[in-house]
Amino acid sequence: MRLRNVRGAKEKIESSKYIVLNYQELKGNFKSLFNNDNPIHIEIGMGKGHFIVENAKRYPNINFIGIEKFDSVIVRAIEKIEAENIPNLRLIRMDATTINEVFEKEIDTVYLNFSDPWPKVRHAHRRLSSKKFLQRYDTIFKGNKHIIMKTDNRHLFEFSVQEFTDYGYKIDKLCLDVYNEGIENNIPTEYEMKFSSKGFPIYMIEISKI
Amino acid sequence: MRLRNVRGAKEKIESSKYIVLNYQELKGNFKSLFNNDNPIHIEIGMGKGHFIVENAKRYPNINFIGIEKFDSVIVRAIEKIEAENIPNLRLIRMDATTINEVFEKEIDTVYLNFSDPWPKVRHAHRRLSSKKFLQRYDTIFKGNKHIIMKTDNRHLFEFSVQEFTDYGYKIDKLCLDVYNEGIENNIPTEYEMKFSSKGFPIYMIEISKI
Repeated sequence: MRLRNVRGAKEKIESSKYIVLNYQELKGNFKSLFNNDNPIHIEIGMGKGHFIVENAKRYPNINFIGIEKFDSVIVRAIEKIEAENIPNLRLIRMDATTINEVFEKEIDTVYLNFSDPWPKVRHAHRRLSSKKFLQRYDTIFKGNKHIIMKTDNRHLFEFSVQEFTDYGYKIDKLCLDVYNEGIENNIPTEYEMKFSSKGFPIYMIEISKI
Repeated sequence: MRLRNVRGAKEKIESSKYIVLNYQELKGNFKSLFNNDNPIHIEIGMGKGHFIVENAKRYPNINFIGIEKFDSVIVRAIEKIEAENIPNLRLIRMDATTINEVFEKEIDTVYLNFSDPWPKVRHAHRRLSSKKFLQRYDTIFKGNKHIIMKTDNRHLFEFSVQEFTDYGYKIDKLCLDVYNEGIENNIPTEYEMKFSSKGFPIYMIEISKI
């Protein structure tokens, strides 16, 4: 994604009702944000937020937290939803490398959508589906570990399937062409809407681990 | 593959030097066919044989056995190679459902190329990559279990990746577009030569299990 400087982004982000500023104080207690015990799903690298916002609207009995490190895209998400009332949605501006220091035994599902492929082998540990990250996710899940990934990047997907299964995850669902399959209730990301229309396949995998 | 009746197929097959007629007497002793201790690789459903014949020529220190149940295609393979001398190649006309009664602790690698997808769910157990077949393969391997599969059938491939990993196989290599990847030394099947040129992706997976 191209990143542009957005004027006043920092102020917009910090004043938004959707942004969790004190996230470092909530470890193990994120449910207090929502005042209920509903499952919590997070999207790591939510970009401009279409996927997680649509999910939050469609599934009011699930709490959603979008994580994004870039101000310039998180501000776009905020601009879209600031006037709306979506009580089961929060956003955190943070780098996912410290995710295991932020959450503890409270997440039900992790979404990884069109993550940065980090094509160079020496950067493999930066991929959100690498063993390094899978280790970080281990302690954030409440019970059963559950990850759903979509990407159009073939090499990232091939790598990810191997990492997931090597790490002991079981494949619950695998689809090598989401748009020709008609995966029910698929909610696209901004990126996906642009690229699936060009005819490239979108890959999807859903995995779990006890 | 369309199957036609081929005149005199039965006689051609039975008189070929490449065909193993007494295969039911060789369990555990297939190396006697080759008079050496080289690894034995088998292709289940070899069709017209291009893949296994080319492999046998390219790798003289590996013994290859092609398995096929249809006379009408096995005879095409024989017609192509009858005049040649390929000492490390044999063919067996049989149905793979009894493969565990034919081989025992003597196979190093199994190739599954463009297998019948059996698209109906109630026929899933007939797919050569189904759990039912993986169980049959268990006792034919000499040591480490090793399977290499190629197909252009997306649903068969999605199913297979799931069956393999559920059954405890480890993914050694995964490629979702063999022709855009330039997998080194790829030997195509007849079917593959025809379909890869139309731009459909060819999927490949290499798996192993101790």
